[in-house]
Amino acid sequence: MTRIKFKLQGFPQIKEGKLDLDNSQVILNGQNYSINQLTFDNPISGTLYGTVLNYKGEYELLKPEMDEKPYQKPPEAPVLYIKPVNTFSSHQKPIPLPEGEEQVQIGAALGLVIGQTATKVKAEDALDYIEGYTVVNDVSLPFASVYRPAIKQKARDGFCPIGPWIVKRDEIKDPHQLTTKVWVNGELKQENNTNNLIRTIPELLEDVTEFMTLYEGDVLLVGVPEHQPYARLGDRVKIEVEHVGFLEHDVVKESDVYTREVSADEVR
Amino acid sequence: MTRIKFKLQGFPQIKEGKLDLDNSQVILNGQNYSINQLTFDNPISGTLYGTVLNYKGEYELLKPEMDEKPYQKPPEAPVLYIKPVNTFSSHQKPIPLPEGEEQVQIGAALGLVIGQTATKVKAEDALDYIEGYTVVNDVSLPFASVYRPAIKQKARDGFCPIGPWIVKRDEIKDPHQLTTKVWVNGELKQENNTNNLIRTIPELLEDVTEFMTLYEGDVLLVGVPEHQPYARLGDRVKIEVEHVGFLEHDVVKESDVYTREVSADEVR
Amino acid sequence: MTRIKFKLQGFPQIKEGKLDLDNSQVILNGQNYSINQLTFDNPISGTLYGTVLNYKGEYELLKPEMDEKPYQKPPEAPVLYIKPVNTFSSHQKPIPLPEGEEQVQIGAALGLVIGQTATKVKAEDALDYIEGYTVVNDVSLPFASVYRPAIKQKARDGFCPIGPWIVKRDEIKDPHQLTTKVWVNGELKQENNTNNLIRTIPELLEDVTEFMTLYEGDVLLVGVPEHQPYARLGDRVKIEVEHVGFLEHDVVKESDVYTREVSADEVR
Amino acid sequence: MTRIKFKLQGFPQIKEGKLDLDNSQVILNGQNYSINQLTFDNPISGTLYGTVLNYKGEYELLKPEMDEKPYQKPPEAPVLYIKPVNTFSSHQKPIPLPEGEEQVQIGAALGLVIGQTATKVKAEDALDYIEGYTVVNDVSLPFASVYRPAIKQKARDGFCPIGPWIVKRDEIKDPHQLTTKVWVNGELKQENNTNNLIRTIPELLEDVTEFMTLYEGDVLLVGVPEHQPYARLGDRVKIEVEHVGFLEHDVVKESDVYTREVSADEVR
Repeated sequence: MTRIKFKLQGFPQIKEGKLDLDNSQVILNGQNYSINQLTFDNPISGTLYGTVLNYKGEYELLKPEMDEKPYQKPPEAPVLYIKPVNTFSSHQKPIPLPEGEEQVQIGAALGLVIGQTATKVKAEDALDYIEGYTVVNDVSLPFASVYRPAIKQKARDGFCPIGPWIVKRDEIKDPHQLTTKVWVNGELKQENNTNNLIRTIPELLEDVTEFMTLYEGDVLLVGVPEHQPYARLGDRVKIEVEHVGFLEHDVVKESDVYTREVSADEVR
Repeated sequence: MTRIKFKLQGFPQIKEGKLDLDNSQVILNGQNYSINQLTFDNPISGTLYGTVLNYKGEYELLKPEMDEKPYQKPPEAPVLYIKPVNTFSSHQKPIPLPEGEEQVQIGAALGLVIGQTATKVKAEDALDYIEGYTVVNDVSLPFASVYRPAIKQKARDGFCPIGPWIVKRDEIKDPHQLTTKVWVNGELKQENNTNNLIRTIPELLEDVTEFMTLYEGDVLLVGVPEHQPYARLGDRVKIEVEHVGFLEHDVVKESDVYTREVSADEVR
Repeated sequence: MTRIKFKLQGFPQIKEGKLDLDNSQVILNGQNYSINQLTFDNPISGTLYGTVLNYKGEYELLKPEMDEKPYQKPPEAPVLYIKPVNTFSSHQKPIPLPEGEEQVQIGAALGLVIGQTATKVKAEDALDYIEGYTVVNDVSLPFASVYRPAIKQKARDGFCPIGPWIVKRDEIKDPHQLTTKVWVNGELKQENNTNNLIRTIPELLEDVTEFMTLYEGDVLLVGVPEHQPYARLGDRVKIEVEHVGFLEHDVVKESDVYTREVSADEVR
Repeated sequence: MTRIKFKLQGFPQIKEGKLDLDNSQVILNGQNYSINQLTFDNPISGTLYGTVLNYKGEYELLKPEMDEKPYQKPPEAPVLYIKPVNTFSSHQKPIPLPEGEEQVQIGAALGLVIGQTATKVKAEDALDYIEGYTVVNDVSLPFASVYRPAIKQKARDGFCPIGPWIVKRDEIKDPHQLTTKVWVNGELKQENNTNNLIRTIPELLEDVTEFMTLYEGDVLLVGVPEHQPYARLGDRVKIEVEHVGFLEHDVVKESDVYTREVSADEVR
């Protein structure tokens, strides 16, 4: 049984409960619920930062480009981007395919939920600043280069499902041994593991908080694995971070995003 | 077509659209939706204040009690109470019946949504401070007296459904000519009209902001009509404020509150 | 050295640091500051609930009134009220004396800052739900009766200074052995102790969360001691909760509230 | 007299008043205050987006670089970045110079404060979505290239003073005829005008909301003029947007940021 925090749709504030992931159960106020009975809202309240170039495979793929102009060498500090609030969405909410686009890229990311103000933290203390872990689908439109600031590709409405819950830090024995998986229409399309991170979680927190403060409620993604799978109109997407949870979505036309949900009986 | 603001469950921010109440349609981004297709979240962001003793009938009923000790006269300033955030709920979310209770009282209230900081406003300017109107079901446990501060009866979790939307002020021609209705299981149980208010809306805003500031996003209820209907386990409740909207709910056991919704096909 | 959380004026988010109350020092990011050098903002983010009738002396004073009509017996559940956001103010900000009023009443209260969602908690677990403690000056206009809901007296703008910081729960050995003091112009006007609470802190949390949920960031006052001192125009007020902290304010005309602060060199 | 919205330090919510910029006066609740008497807090509540490459001069300077690899042409959509909440600061708060850095770059930007949800708005309607205008100092560390996402340079704590107020939209006759100025130690270092924008304000809003939604409270910078002045330790910086307002700051060591303010008598 895993301690979690979560928000249910239509109710304004955070709830605390327990998760039995193997049996797809959540316990709230002493009552058992099937995960599929509940409608989870996005559980986070702060700023969400993504990290590029932190999976070894992604780094190797992009290294030739980084050795060219204009940089001629890889970045030394973590390179971050922000997913603004208009992108936030939640478990089972559809992913909108913008008009004129053929496909979206799926990004299966472990999110570190910050538990207290973090300024210039040392790697050896860094885990103390984490309240817990969540799953983030860092959706984007395909884009050619790692360089150009990608807000147009990454900050579309609905391009950042988060949740369904926050697993408390101490419930995860080793956050550097978590398999991440992406399925499209039930077919496994990507598998990676947080043991492939270049900067470990403590190193990442040390390097980021060296130059900026993270606050309670902020989320920092550890990175997105290389070879992001594509999804097209009508596809069903599932991403999973081992021991933390999973998010499931249909890809729909923008105008269907408010009405279509993965219904309970459709869910495996 | 009426301009409205609303929030949809699972998406983090306020949307603006149009309402066609006669045809049960909402238009969002140029797209038509049936009201029943959408899942509305609570649209308000501030503090919600209720007002007691502002319907003529309620006042007449309670006057004998007010003439006794300890007051021996009716209050001169508006008497307000607050519904805290734990009570907030939304359209179609069930109303929980607390364990050990037989019934709840239904309060059909017009909510004034404040649009800008209001301090010591004059009645003649008061409407300028209103952004719009919403429907609030001010649920309470039955209580014997108007005197004792009633947080225990009025501040239970889920005892304040709000919404489904905010109708912009200028869409309502005369807010003092709105019929309010309560149905239980399809039977009309209460009907009243905002032309029975003791303090008109401008007078109420003048008298309240004389002693405290209201802020953008706050909601002030104009009052709750006398003879509040009761609802029991399993009842379906509908309240309506003419031209503004309606809220619909089942009364359920507390443990069912997160899983039972009025489903679209059940709705009349 | 005591671990604290606080907010500084003009900066948007919560900071964590250490407090050395004996030497009037705060340590932030490894740097020492005199308390008087820093301008503290209100550190809380949720709803603030007051509790009446929880000091033995206050209860004894009011018992005769409670034995009369309309109640004829003291209340069984905790009687709560809410200080809405318009009342919130911070350390060294002046207390406004509303026009036409001669004096205000000072309420020296220990505030329990909630750290996680609290629903139907048991007294034996209740301390787990507290993140920390803060000082609250529950200012009100004088009012005659404990019965009539006192929003008009208690919810005036600026009538609830809070802070200056939140002391983490484990830093306070016994929250039922804290002396509270009120000085007016340097003269000690009231002294009491949290060992005079009727409901202990765990009992209060059990009884309150029996009927409503408290959330992270909410504050629950344990009560306000009887014989609240009065303060008049030009008075300087200081309230203190032992080991937690102190708040200091001048009483000024409403129009001076935004410009007059207790300046550092005036502070004892 | 100009209608404004603002927030004062130590008080939790937004106030509305009037500004007389020529006489350095603010009127609040019918009372006159000198601007220097008040301590303004950051007045915004949403996400702050910056825009690159929207001043003609900046574009011309960078065009040679854009014609090289990896892009070989200028971007077609607006290129945005986000200043996260840790950067937010307010009028008269010092700008921290990070340890090991010699200087910061000053960015004098007009901020468009969004007033209602803006999705796929047309240029001809775009001004309807603006609530007002504010001044933003988009501080950054010097950086070599327009390409690499510059969070490390632009997202330092305290690198985004905002305010002191929001001027209501209709108070500004022509937002494309506003002179922007930067002084360092009283010497005029930069002067530009919003008539040099490549995308006009309506065009910018059309192009941005084509791919993402802006919400009430968000701020979109129209761009930062080329040849950003530098400021060093101990310098006093003032930026001004004509008819909107001005921001003034000292550049201090990070550890002095919480204690040093521009004091009223030092202000010109």
